[in-house]
Amino acid sequence: MPTINRQWKLANRPTGLITPDVLQLSESPIPTVSDGQALARVKYFSIDPTMRVWMADVAQYMPAVTIGEVMRAFGLAEIIESRHPDFKKGDKVSGLTGFQEYVLLTAAGKQFFQKLPSIPFLSDVNFLNLLGVTGLTAYFGLLEVGKPQSGETLVVSAAAGATGSVVGQLGKIHGCRVVGIAGSDEKCKWIKDDLGFDAAVNYKHPDWKQQLAAATPKGVDINFENVGGEVMQAVLDRMNLHGRVVVCGLISGYTKQDPGLASFAQVIVKRLRVEGFLILDYVSRFMEAGQKLGIWKMTGKLKSRETIVKGFENAPEAINMLFRGDNIGKLIVEL
Amino acid sequence: MPTINRQWKLANRPTGLITPDVLQLSESPIPTVSDGQALARVKYFSIDPTMRVWMADVAQYMPAVTIGEVMRAFGLAEIIESRHPDFKKGDKVSGLTGFQEYVLLTAAGKQFFQKLPSIPFLSDVNFLNLLGVTGLTAYFGLLEVGKPQSGETLVVSAAAGATGSVVGQLGKIHGCRVVGIAGSDEKCKWIKDDLGFDAAVNYKHPDWKQQLAAATPKGVDINFENVGGEVMQAVLDRMNLHGRVVVCGLISGYTKQDPGLASFAQVIVKRLRVEGFLILDYVSRFMEAGQKLGIWKMTGKLKSRETIVKGFENAPEAINMLFRGDNIGKLIVEL
Repeated sequence: MPTINRQWKLANRPTGLITPDVLQLSESPIPTVSDGQALARVKYFSIDPTMRVWMADVAQYMPAVTIGEVMRAFGLAEIIESRHPDFKKGDKVSGLTGFQEYVLLTAAGKQFFQKLPSIPFLSDVNFLNLLGVTGLTAYFGLLEVGKPQSGETLVVSAAAGATGSVVGQLGKIHGCRVVGIAGSDEKCKWIKDDLGFDAAVNYKHPDWKQQLAAATPKGVDINFENVGGEVMQAVLDRMNLHGRVVVCGLISGYTKQDPGLASFAQVIVKRLRVEGFLILDYVSRFMEAGQKLGIWKMTGKLKSRETIVKGFENAPEAINMLFRGDNIGKLIVEL
Repeated sequence: MPTINRQWKLANRPTGLITPDVLQLSESPIPTVSDGQALARVKYFSIDPTMRVWMADVAQYMPAVTIGEVMRAFGLAEIIESRHPDFKKGDKVSGLTGFQEYVLLTAAGKQFFQKLPSIPFLSDVNFLNLLGVTGLTAYFGLLEVGKPQSGETLVVSAAAGATGSVVGQLGKIHGCRVVGIAGSDEKCKWIKDDLGFDAAVNYKHPDWKQQLAAATPKGVDINFENVGGEVMQAVLDRMNLHGRVVVCGLISGYTKQDPGLASFAQVIVKRLRVEGFLILDYVSRFMEAGQKLGIWKMTGKLKSRETIVKGFENAPEAINMLFRGDNIGKLIVEL
């Protein structure tokens, strides 16, 4: 039985990408389990853009990770010892495991731990992807904030990313013309050929804004925004009167001191409704969304894909992969 | 009887403020009146930030003024000759007169002309201010888009301007704590002492952001935005969860090649709803709004103030006054 718990702790706040001085590898004894607690071994980390925000000393929706604290991360773990009434040995759970090999489940609320149901056709990683935070973000963001109507044009940025790839497919299920913006021809090919997007635009091509215009002949009714900055501005410029902008993420700005800026001018000219949201506001409806997403997945209406990085020691660099656009679909570290 | 109609025509698109080469003074014969038309002598021009947008070759809600065209402007005029069924000599009308001394009323729809009612206690200029586009903008923007609730904190920028000064007073009528941002101590004194704002912050003071924080101890529920850029950003940083941002104008950017940029990051973190609007969307409800505004004005609940510039020849420079912040209340040119 191992006795050491390896952890990545925040040592310095990053200024750009995650440099080697930002996260420090440290070791501590595996915690002992008291009454009402359970110990779990972590199997996967979910790698999400918001982690870069958690590291920064800026206004955010959760407290910033403090210096010296284990880096915050969602993950999937298996209970190896339990004195907790809700969990038994062998149960799989998802929640805020942190960047460490073992996690003690204590006050469940703060760690968002929940037991994974055992459902045929669904693998463990589905619960960090389509059935996890990613799928729920796409579901509530598009359906509750974007409110897609059949026949409308939906543009989604970071379209080959974890959230964007689900948003586009949900748009298709709801009858929209769906156009994705992504950063490579391979990504564009995947979302168009495999996921069924109507069009895909590679924003690294010099004439991508003309391509976007050609792909949205009736303008844009819904912008599901994951990127911000110049990409967002180009979509805002194509919006129709009274269009809706779902602001889910602004990944272009997270590694810059200068956040991705855009002009609010089109908000007036086009009378847009721009809304930010976080899935934290929809916790009470996770079950409903999970059931629908699960059914769509099992009936082949929703596809998902993971980019899996192996090894606990590669977790910090995995965060950088997100910001370089090295992943297709959900980025996951397998311990 | 005069025969010459002086007009300010757009000669060159401005790059910043209105330089002497932008508008050209020209003369044409006073038009003759055909069946179904009326001729009016213009008495006042309404000077509005949106005029600078109309001059630019950018996406906007109306076609840009073309080179050689009489500069577009709202105004108030008196009918001097009529062969139009709706108007008779002596009637006063408001609408898109343009920057000229005489205007021919033809197809009423495009010029937005309407006859002014004769109401005790209301002067002509009230129909360009509180009872005109300005008051209607404040009314629909705050009440329909901002939806103020009693006890909420409302921050309005350009608070001593035509629209902002009405917005703040409407906020007080609806039970809000109202904080205005303006660009001089004199303006701050007016909105606080005469209009009853709870607090006023001069953004030209070095510590204005601290003053704004002190004036909004419970954060900000509604931001009525007239300025954009750095002023908007500072208010966004004070917003409460699920706050509303009414994007009415972005005057800080209109004279710059670089439009007033701001970050959308707080839109996510605070789950804000940001909406642009134009009163064109509320034409069918102008009568309802005008009646309420008129009653509040007559019962002393709404105060208004005008900065009046005399002389047709001073109209171009009056536009610059807006962008320098030289006006308090509504800026009007009296011919």
